[in-house]
Amino acid sequence: MLVTKVNLEAPYLLYLGNCPDWHHAKTGAGIAYWRPDRCAGQMRLPTCPVDLGLPEMTVQDAVDAGVRTVVVGVAPMGGRIPAEWMPQLCELAEAGINVAAGLHTKLHSLPVLVAAAAKGKAVLTDVRIPPADLPVGTGRLRSGKRILMIGTDCAVGKKYSALALHRELERRGIKSSFRATGQTGIMIAGEGIPIDAVVADFISGAAEILSPDNDDDHWDVIEGQGSLLNPSYSGVSLGLLHGSQPNAIVLCHDVERLSIDGTDGDFPIPELDEVIDDALRCARRMRNDCFCAGVSINTSSLSDLDREMYLSKMQQHLGLPCVDPVVTGMTPIANFLLRHTT
Amino acid sequence: MLVTKVNLEAPYLLYLGNCPDWHHAKTGAGIAYWRPDRCAGQMRLPTCPVDLGLPEMTVQDAVDAGVRTVVVGVAPMGGRIPAEWMPQLCELAEAGINVAAGLHTKLHSLPVLVAAAAKGKAVLTDVRIPPADLPVGTGRLRSGKRILMIGTDCAVGKKYSALALHRELERRGIKSSFRATGQTGIMIAGEGIPIDAVVADFISGAAEILSPDNDDDHWDVIEGQGSLLNPSYSGVSLGLLHGSQPNAIVLCHDVERLSIDGTDGDFPIPELDEVIDDALRCARRMRNDCFCAGVSINTSSLSDLDREMYLSKMQQHLGLPCVDPVVTGMTPIANFLLRHTT
Repeated sequence: MLVTKVNLEAPYLLYLGNCPDWHHAKTGAGIAYWRPDRCAGQMRLPTCPVDLGLPEMTVQDAVDAGVRTVVVGVAPMGGRIPAEWMPQLCELAEAGINVAAGLHTKLHSLPVLVAAAAKGKAVLTDVRIPPADLPVGTGRLRSGKRILMIGTDCAVGKKYSALALHRELERRGIKSSFRATGQTGIMIAGEGIPIDAVVADFISGAAEILSPDNDDDHWDVIEGQGSLLNPSYSGVSLGLLHGSQPNAIVLCHDVERLSIDGTDGDFPIPELDEVIDDALRCARRMRNDCFCAGVSINTSSLSDLDREMYLSKMQQHLGLPCVDPVVTGMTPIANFLLRHTT
Repeated sequence: MLVTKVNLEAPYLLYLGNCPDWHHAKTGAGIAYWRPDRCAGQMRLPTCPVDLGLPEMTVQDAVDAGVRTVVVGVAPMGGRIPAEWMPQLCELAEAGINVAAGLHTKLHSLPVLVAAAAKGKAVLTDVRIPPADLPVGTGRLRSGKRILMIGTDCAVGKKYSALALHRELERRGIKSSFRATGQTGIMIAGEGIPIDAVVADFISGAAEILSPDNDDDHWDVIEGQGSLLNPSYSGVSLGLLHGSQPNAIVLCHDVERLSIDGTDGDFPIPELDEVIDDALRCARRMRNDCFCAGVSINTSSLSDLDREMYLSKMQQHLGLPCVDPVVTGMTPIANFLLRHTT
């Protein structure tokens, strides 16, 4: 299969640089949560307020702990590596620790880092490189079943929801694969396609390659990207939706997200039923029986009581399972999904 | 402005290779129609049924006629150059004739052709190269007015309609720019952005760059790409729609196109009012007063009487100007557009 494969040697040191907030640390947070067994520690600049709860390490600590790879856990604005990070990353590479990142700026394009890695015999791995020779999408229906996470916006829990649903299906003994579409998902799963780094003409073709023909009772649980509502990334989201041809979608949302992130409130998030209806309208152009299996909402900002009320009201309103993937888990969505497919 | 600029030396020889039909010859046909003064002849393989009506030339004819550039006039699916074309293209390059193409396969990636061009001191120009360092889209509303061609499918006359509408606006003394989004449009206009060759994360950002802030009474007439209904290219189309933030759209269609090209009838084209409503629903997420200014339909397969009946029935049904851009022209759409904007 023509997917991007990465095999990062554990244990990892998660590098946060001067990451200003949790949003931008989602790569580090995702790896720490889903692959805790591989994470030995974290390294930050003194100004960084984000704490993944891992042991703080110096370069010497990392060497002593046998760290094999430092993983850049931040997605800075513009996808470029700030100059302030270079001394620490170079020192690690010179000490023989491999460096991995999934930014638009390639590690191999940084001569100082390349030199440091050569000196320390460290390997530099750029994760956000799509496979070569992707085909144009065809629209051909494939065997097997697919469920795609869609979002009201970026960074609302699509990856988390997909991984949690995949784990829930596996727990029940149902054949399932997590299909990563972004750099963090690829580092967690070891393979996938960074769909936002693909040339535009090949978005749906890449999505078709990512979830190929499979057993009739096999589920591909596909990580979403962006949002159909996001003025920056909607093209990626529609190409992924059409290429995935999902049997079902899950809408992911963050209860605090009132408008599209970074647009000064210019693009308010519509009511969730409207978001679902619009997405299904798009999805059904390619597979006319696509349905919504539930809504997965980050409610970490709410009290327990408020969360319970919010989810129960939303569930009543939408007539669909509404969960917080961390607090209540994905079981109700898995139930709904399996009950509505044969 | 960060757009792709090309300056191809005329006169041109239009190369058709073994192009199977008019659909795939749209680059050659577009240049022959819109820039007839620059076209000296055509060259084809014996199996090619498409005839642009230009003088047939051998390599020696082209040299004798002072041809400066051979332009690949075919867009094969997936954008790769078939091996059968190479002998003729190499012979032309060796004879000192520059080669230009707008395919995904870069001329510079073909060692045999590069060697031939070096021998003949010919220049190879790849038109489908997006500008470097494109920004991510922001969704910020820009000054000036914009109208975008959308299609029921690929190759239904979006470029032709945009160029004809631009010419009609200029004829009336209205400030207007044609904004090319594909290789043919770029070769005709001399600049633009090949939006389908941009990295997926930057589609709407590229569209924002292509039609920057302008005078309040200036129209950008933006060539569309693909179709929201096309399983291969819908992501490109939505990113372009959202990044363009058009005041108005024109739906382009071919009366013979009953289902999406190349999908064996699996994806029938819906009724045109449904296509318009869906597109406006998407467009209004970014600009809530976007409207449809008319429908531009290729009716070349109909008799004069059938065309008249078809367009008049459709116009009655949709309540919008319905034209054939070649036969009846874009005047009714320009009238509707200008009457509905202030």
